[in-house]
Amino acid sequence: MRPPIDFYFDFSSPYSYIASEWIDAVAARHGRMVRWHAVLLGATFQAAGLKSPVDHPIKREYSLRDFARSARFAGVPYTHPDRFPVTTQNAARVFWWLNDTAGPERAVAWAHAGLRAYFTQGQDLSDPAVLRGALLTAGIVASQAEAVYTDPAWKERLRRENDKAIAAGVFGAPFFVVDGEPFWGNDRRPQIEAWLAGQADFDHTVL
Amino acid sequence: MRPPIDFYFDFSSPYSYIASEWIDAVAARHGRMVRWHAVLLGATFQAAGLKSPVDHPIKREYSLRDFARSARFAGVPYTHPDRFPVTTQNAARVFWWLNDTAGPERAVAWAHAGLRAYFTQGQDLSDPAVLRGALLTAGIVASQAEAVYTDPAWKERLRRENDKAIAAGVFGAPFFVVDGEPFWGNDRRPQIEAWLAGQADFDHTVL
Repeated sequence: MRPPIDFYFDFSSPYSYIASEWIDAVAARHGRMVRWHAVLLGATFQAAGLKSPVDHPIKREYSLRDFARSARFAGVPYTHPDRFPVTTQNAARVFWWLNDTAGPERAVAWAHAGLRAYFTQGQDLSDPAVLRGALLTAGIVASQAEAVYTDPAWKERLRRENDKAIAAGVFGAPFFVVDGEPFWGNDRRPQIEAWLAGQADFDHTVL
Repeated sequence: MRPPIDFYFDFSSPYSYIASEWIDAVAARHGRMVRWHAVLLGATFQAAGLKSPVDHPIKREYSLRDFARSARFAGVPYTHPDRFPVTTQNAARVFWWLNDTAGPERAVAWAHAGLRAYFTQGQDLSDPAVLRGALLTAGIVASQAEAVYTDPAWKERLRRENDKAIAAGVFGAPFFVVDGEPFWGNDRRPQIEAWLAGQADFDHTVL
């Protein structure tokens, strides 16, 4: 078995959502597993001195258009949420809690549920009542999950994961590391596929 | 004949250089012409409140790696220049001078010559002596071109093109406008190809 792919995502990142819908299938086609990492894009932006693309007025209009177009291009349903972006630390803490207590598969199932709730139904995961509904729909005991939001241990767990991601060179999301090679952005999918196919020198046949 | 594709580039932009090597062939396959626009990325960044990716320390290392990898992926020769980035207003003024006095084809020929001189041979186009050599190699009368650098009329011509680009929503390079649809970045090539093939709704067959 070749090494797993590290996949970093944020619950409020449209390009992360799009990538979340293809990364497992692409990895599986090449006999790879995926290690999912929920991170806070705001923290990585801050570390790198970056801003969200929608914080730049000129770039904002283009970005909103490109989110929807890139989803269409990937064949992924997408409805831009009315409230965007939103804070996602509670959703991310639940991810790491599930990961550590119920296993990575349950954590990934929650990642899909949360991302789809936000990017296809506009469910604002920063709103506790909405997040509770999304958790229940995903079959998670909401009262247990809610205890996680404010528990210093789970806060610390997420903070540590963010720090580790930043130390690993992650400055945005989605971010992928394959065999030590970093790829930033949903739009690096063709390069990742070529890499996984063993065409690391990207000869012309991949184009 | 369907409308031409507008292609905005900067002589110091690696992703512009990579795109410059495929845009005409891709357009021609779909019966389209390309209208090339030399712009100054610095001016568009400033207008949008953006910085160069290599100005962010964490992003810089990744970006340098991605420039070379993306060139390899596109099958385009690339050697990262020792001096990078460099100012390109003189090269861009020559572009518009050729465009207006000798025709777009001569201007595009110079764009190719200048981009290749910088990104395959490290020729620093901001150095007047180096630029003179690149112009001569491209078959351009250097003394005439040099008069253009300091001529207020050609300075104004480039400024006007920058302003027009910014007004058209251009905030980076390469930037493409196809049938009114904006595409930013060399990595939008698959979407541009799908768009040109008439798959504007990007059905699954294009993946």
